[in-house]
Amino acid sequence: MIVKLLVEYDGTAYCGWQVQPNGNTVQAELEKALFSLTGEKIGAVGSGRTDSGVHAKGQVVSFSVAAENIPAEKYAPALNAYLPRDIRVLKSERAAENFNARFSAKRKTYRYTFYVSDTERPLYERYAAKSAPLDVARMQAAAALFVGEHDFKSFCAANSAVKSTVRTVYSAAVERQGDLVFFTVCGNGFLYNMVRIMAGLLAEVGEGRLSAEDVKKILEGKKRGAGRTAPAKGLCLTGVEYD
Amino acid sequence: MIVKLLVEYDGTAYCGWQVQPNGNTVQAELEKALFSLTGEKIGAVGSGRTDSGVHAKGQVVSFSVAAENIPAEKYAPALNAYLPRDIRVLKSERAAENFNARFSAKRKTYRYTFYVSDTERPLYERYAAKSAPLDVARMQAAAALFVGEHDFKSFCAANSAVKSTVRTVYSAAVERQGDLVFFTVCGNGFLYNMVRIMAGLLAEVGEGRLSAEDVKKILEGKKRGAGRTAPAKGLCLTGVEYD
Repeated sequence: MIVKLLVEYDGTAYCGWQVQPNGNTVQAELEKALFSLTGEKIGAVGSGRTDSGVHAKGQVVSFSVAAENIPAEKYAPALNAYLPRDIRVLKSERAAENFNARFSAKRKTYRYTFYVSDTERPLYERYAAKSAPLDVARMQAAAALFVGEHDFKSFCAANSAVKSTVRTVYSAAVERQGDLVFFTVCGNGFLYNMVRIMAGLLAEVGEGRLSAEDVKKILEGKKRGAGRTAPAKGLCLTGVEYD
Repeated sequence: MIVKLLVEYDGTAYCGWQVQPNGNTVQAELEKALFSLTGEKIGAVGSGRTDSGVHAKGQVVSFSVAAENIPAEKYAPALNAYLPRDIRVLKSERAAENFNARFSAKRKTYRYTFYVSDTERPLYERYAAKSAPLDVARMQAAAALFVGEHDFKSFCAANSAVKSTVRTVYSAAVERQGDLVFFTVCGNGFLYNMVRIMAGLLAEVGEGRLSAEDVKKILEGKKRGAGRTAPAKGLCLTGVEYD
């Protein structure tokens, strides 16, 4: 059967989602837990990779398992017994036979968090990036430029070898909550480092060092590696939607 | 001169505020940094102790320093250069010659955070305690009983040797924000473990296992160690006020 998992993780200690020859990854931990639980070598498919240090509260994972002796909804508590404390399966359920967490994904939402301070803040440091004072209205105007179908080549890491750099962004919002500023973006998919490059540019706009017009030129320029990439720790994959 | 510091720390790695023969403490780290900076053996006075694993975003610290070559407001960046990343001085300023962070404190505010979930949540675990579903209105009714001058003997750890167990609570509020529930309490001082015992009792009220009437009886019973103590990681000293 096909099982669908909702997974939350603190990415601080991991080299991202995807299995790597060197370094611990979330996918490797899940596959190890699946093997311990079932005795089967099972490949865990994530909705997408998250980079080293990026967090997730809504990563979706699917896998195919031959044995039917464990009901799908029991995989959550059973896997949690084998997983390290910074990875937890929040929910498990049986999915359609053609379900694939990666290829069936329709919309993904990421949230980037800045904290505004002139000193490092120990209670924010783990999940947010420090910033100079930010003008949220300016950032919102620039974020609105991302909405729609665009060639996001400028927002793709220079070393990425992806075929098409066209993606559709459904919404992009910036809001302040006390000394935190959130950038939330939803789209049909994101290029490698795309959200962190967007966040980095928006911070420069918020600090007054770039204008929305500059962001428009960068987007239209379609030149890779155009902006500074905001630190991984501020990024969280908050949810993935399927039809 | 007397210098007053505003200090934030992630208490996860520390055996609390106060210097101890075994185990690392926040006070010890600050005194080490003060010695590295000034060459003087300086005692750092905190507004109060925080237990092992408790956090602070508004701890106030005072010290007396003989040398006057460093202006008071420069202590914040200078000490941060010597402190570990999970302790930061947010602000430093010169205080009156009779200022003492402990004895001059008039009001302290603590916040306790629960997250409501049936699974551990990696992104909440560090700063909040897991709870079953909570009825916030019931908790608020029970919290209101804490307000006023009371003998809080029942809310004092069994091994505490304090003289008077009478304290005044100025406000006690419970509020929900999504899947988080905050208990915020302000008073003229708190007994050892008092806020964590309050939080533990309020959780039992929120879960429906105790009533506000039970809490009233426990308060009036003046019997030490009456309730379960909520985990340290959910507690944060958010601020200390002075006249």
